[in-house]
Amino acid sequence: MILIGERINGMFSDIARAISEKDPRPIQEWAKKQEAMGAAYLDLNVGPSVADRVSAMRWLVEVTQEASSLPLCLDSTDYDAIEAGLEVCKRPAMINSVPAIQEKMDRVFAMALKYDAEVIGLAMNEEGIPKDSESRIALAMELVANCDAHGIPLERLYIDPLVLPCNVGQDHGPEVFETLRQVKLLSNPPPRTTLGLSNISQGAKNRKLINRTFAVMAMACGLDSAIANVCDQELLEAVATARILLNMDIYCDSYVDVFKSQNK
Amino acid sequence: MILIGERINGMFSDIARAISEKDPRPIQEWAKKQEAMGAAYLDLNVGPSVADRVSAMRWLVEVTQEASSLPLCLDSTDYDAIEAGLEVCKRPAMINSVPAIQEKMDRVFAMALKYDAEVIGLAMNEEGIPKDSESRIALAMELVANCDAHGIPLERLYIDPLVLPCNVGQDHGPEVFETLRQVKLLSNPPPRTTLGLSNISQGAKNRKLINRTFAVMAMACGLDSAIANVCDQELLEAVATARILLNMDIYCDSYVDVFKSQNK
Repeated sequence: MILIGERINGMFSDIARAISEKDPRPIQEWAKKQEAMGAAYLDLNVGPSVADRVSAMRWLVEVTQEASSLPLCLDSTDYDAIEAGLEVCKRPAMINSVPAIQEKMDRVFAMALKYDAEVIGLAMNEEGIPKDSESRIALAMELVANCDAHGIPLERLYIDPLVLPCNVGQDHGPEVFETLRQVKLLSNPPPRTTLGLSNISQGAKNRKLINRTFAVMAMACGLDSAIANVCDQELLEAVATARILLNMDIYCDSYVDVFKSQNK
Repeated sequence: MILIGERINGMFSDIARAISEKDPRPIQEWAKKQEAMGAAYLDLNVGPSVADRVSAMRWLVEVTQEASSLPLCLDSTDYDAIEAGLEVCKRPAMINSVPAIQEKMDRVFAMALKYDAEVIGLAMNEEGIPKDSESRIALAMELVANCDAHGIPLERLYIDPLVLPCNVGQDHGPEVFETLRQVKLLSNPPPRTTLGLSNISQGAKNRKLINRTFAVMAMACGLDSAIANVCDQELLEAVATARILLNMDIYCDSYVDVFKSQNK
């Protein structure tokens, strides 16, 4: 399970303030903390309230790289901002994200090729997020075809089936599980899978319980990675246990500690 | 998720003592406690050290029925003991269990028909437990065919793919998940599925963490029921959450409490 640390996001007030005041410290502290907790990537999102997203993303990449050598996941709907970030990334990054909309796929996959970036592809298009797994898979297939047409290996594409909060879109849950299973049948080698874990519990009670339960159920259906709160100890314990039960890591009595001490 | 309370089992010393001294109190206390925690069935196993299993099982059924009105799951490899128990059961019971061995299937399915009992069918035969899911499914198919040949509806058959402790048979884990998925494709309506949950963590550290993680992962693959420690609060919380995420119960803020207050 590849954990992408979600915390450097302008939706959090400390990050929004840091970006507006150009104060690198909170960002660099979260970069180090998430790396220490076992994040394999750091998601960077300038947030909704920034006027100049291009310069904000470039600055965010630069100050994060001063504190951590982890690869970055550039998270924006503004592709000029993503490209500005890619220009200053020292290591191959991940683009978060592209829906199955032709002009957006054209730009994002071309950028991915130019900057050797991985891509998160969303199972949605102009009409929004479909409910049933068949429609989600049809959109995943479009992403796969476009990724392949650009000559990008499909292991560098992460399909996100898109998770809705369980208290508003509860009927989407089984469809997301089925989509994860079906994605693995789309090609050989198949694309990878990811999702924004915290979305499942948005606005619900028992958020951490819901997050970690959903995470391991999704892993049983083929989830390879998640953008998540890597500082949630019980989530890390559940994920480490799921890796043992899926025979991805060898059991030892200290497997939870071993998992937490390694970047996965 | 149908939870079958595991605690009235002669492997536990208090139950072994109660059986040998014909003291109904510990058995009746565990019957009431497991019912209060939300067990839907009570597993009864006289344990390995009893000389006369036939009379012990009959007595165990009688004293348990004085304390609880839950249906019983009669757990023995001695089919005379199971039949003695079935004779005194006030409600249709479950037979735990029969492997895919012809003479045993002949006897067990005939008993099931006579006493209107459900049956747990094990994915094993004379040669033991196979590792790969294909072989487990082939054995499940034999159980399905024999159940059907006796005219017993397949919803009354619970296929147990058989779980090995993760610290000795770790490579069985993914095969068990795949078996659970495939069982649902065997017939329409399909058989149900069950497993002995505590087996997965036998001899391991973090037993409860392993149990509840395995339970919800298995539920994502089609697990319908489990013989389990129903007094494990965190297991109940995880199972309640998995039911929400599989859209089996409607989300409300108090869904964990609602689940615990109901027999599922």
